[in-house]
Amino acid sequence: MAEATYDPNNIFAKILRGEIPSHRVYEDAAVVAFMDVMPQGTGHTLVVPKAPSRNLLDADAATFGPLLAVVQKVALAVKKAFAADGVTILQFNEPASGQSVYHLHVHVIPRFEGIPLKPHSGQMEKPEVLVENAGKIRAALGI
Amino acid sequence: MAEATYDPNNIFAKILRGEIPSHRVYEDAAVVAFMDVMPQGTGHTLVVPKAPSRNLLDADAATFGPLLAVVQKVALAVKKAFAADGVTILQFNEPASGQSVYHLHVHVIPRFEGIPLKPHSGQMEKPEVLVENAGKIRAALGI
Repeated sequence: MAEATYDPNNIFAKILRGEIPSHRVYEDAAVVAFMDVMPQGTGHTLVVPKAPSRNLLDADAATFGPLLAVVQKVALAVKKAFAADGVTILQFNEPASGQSVYHLHVHVIPRFEGIPLKPHSGQMEKPEVLVENAGKIRAALGI
Repeated sequence: MAEATYDPNNIFAKILRGEIPSHRVYEDAAVVAFMDVMPQGTGHTLVVPKAPSRNLLDADAATFGPLLAVVQKVALAVKKAFAADGVTILQFNEPASGQSVYHLHVHVIPRFEGIPLKPHSGQMEKPEVLVENAGKIRAALGI
C-alpha cells in the first residue's frame, strides 16, 4: 500500500491557519497548543507543531526539540491548573493506532487517582467548559 | 505533597549502567532503546534517554530533540520489522498515569488493524521471543 500523503485541509491545519476556531492555550514560532474538543479527561490538551506532517512517522526531526519542550510545558501547566496526580502523553500514528486527524499532534491528559481515561468517543465538551479550562491552563502557564 | 526525587537505583538506570541485562535495539550518545519485557503488543520497545529524570515533568529539555528523533527511528523500524499498520506512542507521568518505573521512558508499540493493546499486565514475554523481535528491529534499523 502506498503511504498516504499530507492533506493541507485537515482540521488541525485549518485551526493552525485560523480558518476554524480553537481554544488556544499556547503558541510560539513552531508549536501551538489548544483544547481537545472531545476530551478523554478534564483539561485534555493537544500540542501541535506548525510544520506539516501526517504524524510522527513523516515529521521533520527539526520540530522535535521545540515540540517536546511545549509538551513538557503544557504537562506541567495542566498538572498545576487541575491539581492533577499525573499526566498521560499519547501520540497516535495511522488508523490502527487510533489516529483520526492527520496532522501530527500530541495528547496531554491530566490524570487523577482512580479515574480512568474516557474513551475517545466523539462526545463534544461544552464550549463554556473548554473556555474555563483553557483559562486555567493559560494562568498556570503565566500567560 | 513534596515531589518525589530521582532514584538512581530504578530498574532502567540499572539497565543503562549494564548492571542488569536488556534486549537492546539501539544506542547513541544520549538515548538507548530496548524491548519491553511485559509487552502490550508484538515488538513493544522502550526509548530511554541516558540523562536521569523521573519522567517528562522534571526532564532537561536538552534531551528532547535526540529523544524524539530516536522514538521516530524506532517507530519506523518496528512498523517495517513487523509489517505493522500503525504505531502508538505512550509516555506516563506518575502513578495516576500508570507509570511504574521512575526513569523517563517512551513506549513505542506497533499496532495491527483490529488488535487492541494488551493491558500492561505484568505478564513477562518469553526471552526467545524478545531476542527474535529485537533482531528484527535491529535489522529494520540497519544495525
